[in-house]
Amino acid sequence: MGKYDTLVELLLEAIKEGGDGKKDTAAIPVGISNRHVHISQTDLDALFGAGYQLTKIKDLSQPLQYACQETLTIAGPKGAIEKVRILGPARSQSQVEILQADCFKLGIPAPVKMSGDLQGTSGITLIGPQGSILLTQGVIIAQRHIHMTPEDAKRLGVSNGELVTIQVGGLRGGTYSNVAIRVSGTSALECHIDTEEANAMNIGPNSTITIIK
Amino acid sequence: MGKYDTLVELLLEAIKEGGDGKKDTAAIPVGISNRHVHISQTDLDALFGAGYQLTKIKDLSQPLQYACQETLTIAGPKGAIEKVRILGPARSQSQVEILQADCFKLGIPAPVKMSGDLQGTSGITLIGPQGSILLTQGVIIAQRHIHMTPEDAKRLGVSNGELVTIQVGGLRGGTYSNVAIRVSGTSALECHIDTEEANAMNIGPNSTITIIK
Repeated sequence: MGKYDTLVELLLEAIKEGGDGKKDTAAIPVGISNRHVHISQTDLDALFGAGYQLTKIKDLSQPLQYACQETLTIAGPKGAIEKVRILGPARSQSQVEILQADCFKLGIPAPVKMSGDLQGTSGITLIGPQGSILLTQGVIIAQRHIHMTPEDAKRLGVSNGELVTIQVGGLRGGTYSNVAIRVSGTSALECHIDTEEANAMNIGPNSTITIIK
Repeated sequence: MGKYDTLVELLLEAIKEGGDGKKDTAAIPVGISNRHVHISQTDLDALFGAGYQLTKIKDLSQPLQYACQETLTIAGPKGAIEKVRILGPARSQSQVEILQADCFKLGIPAPVKMSGDLQGTSGITLIGPQGSILLTQGVIIAQRHIHMTPEDAKRLGVSNGELVTIQVGGLRGGTYSNVAIRVSGTSALECHIDTEEANAMNIGPNSTITIIK
């Protein structure tokens, strides 16, 4: 975004805030996830070599989370998808978050689940530059959710684990149900959806959503 | 679907109908569209050879509409997508319906518009076995809509051109706004959405939606 666009945006924001003396406190920023992999150090060693360390290329909105230079090929019985980004840091267990459309390409079913809830999920083959491994479980479609601090939760009138409905405006707008509230002291306020959910409602990186319960 | 599955489905339907003596008349079947091309005879001649006739491989739900054996490569400044299906019969003007995700791959913006409303839309290159052409316009993301007969419209309490909201159940459920009602004497009752809209709400070929206005 150029200087001119930034200026116009700031001016518009100032005008909006001037109207009632405060920002629109109900608007929640959106983070859009494409397919990606969270990897354990053990699996990282097998794929990239013993003791391998991930290379950060970009911080994500959530504190300490980052996109890595490293990518993997993920493969199932029907096909493979190349250049799937690893997100760091390494976790206690590997997890592959894919899109519904990827299930058809890979030939692997994936339940809609919260991050970390991997029981009963499908396995998948991960292929790296130094080796490949067969995960016995870990493939999910991430359930949409909203990260926030306890202060945000209080202000928005929601609590950890609650499922809310979010609203999106515009010609392609609508509502998504069962959006999980995730409260933590170290979270940045952000609603996480995947690229298919974003595209279906024409949601971009600068869009905001509101909770309508 | 095997005989056993068909039998189970029919039994379940019979049990459901037995409950209140009628079918769920509010449920509307869904048709899911992937990217596709409608082609004019002039453009067909240029791409496949003079006087070329399309080869039907499968009837679609709407009367006289069919999927063709023929596919095209579609290309923009950033990339190309191969094997994009042509839907027949030939139309008065060519039209390319793509997904939001395709806009990034191709490097072509596409507005959300109703079929046939091509004014101000982007052009695109079409590549066939006997030639390629540059369409000067015709690329859209199809606005979701519901085909129905006047009888359906009366029963459902809607009218041609009206924009309604549809509801989808389940963990990934929600609502889509601005779904256009299209009434015609020769339509089959069906709600048309694209694969991203379907995947975002876990809608499959056997799903149904309801109008909530």
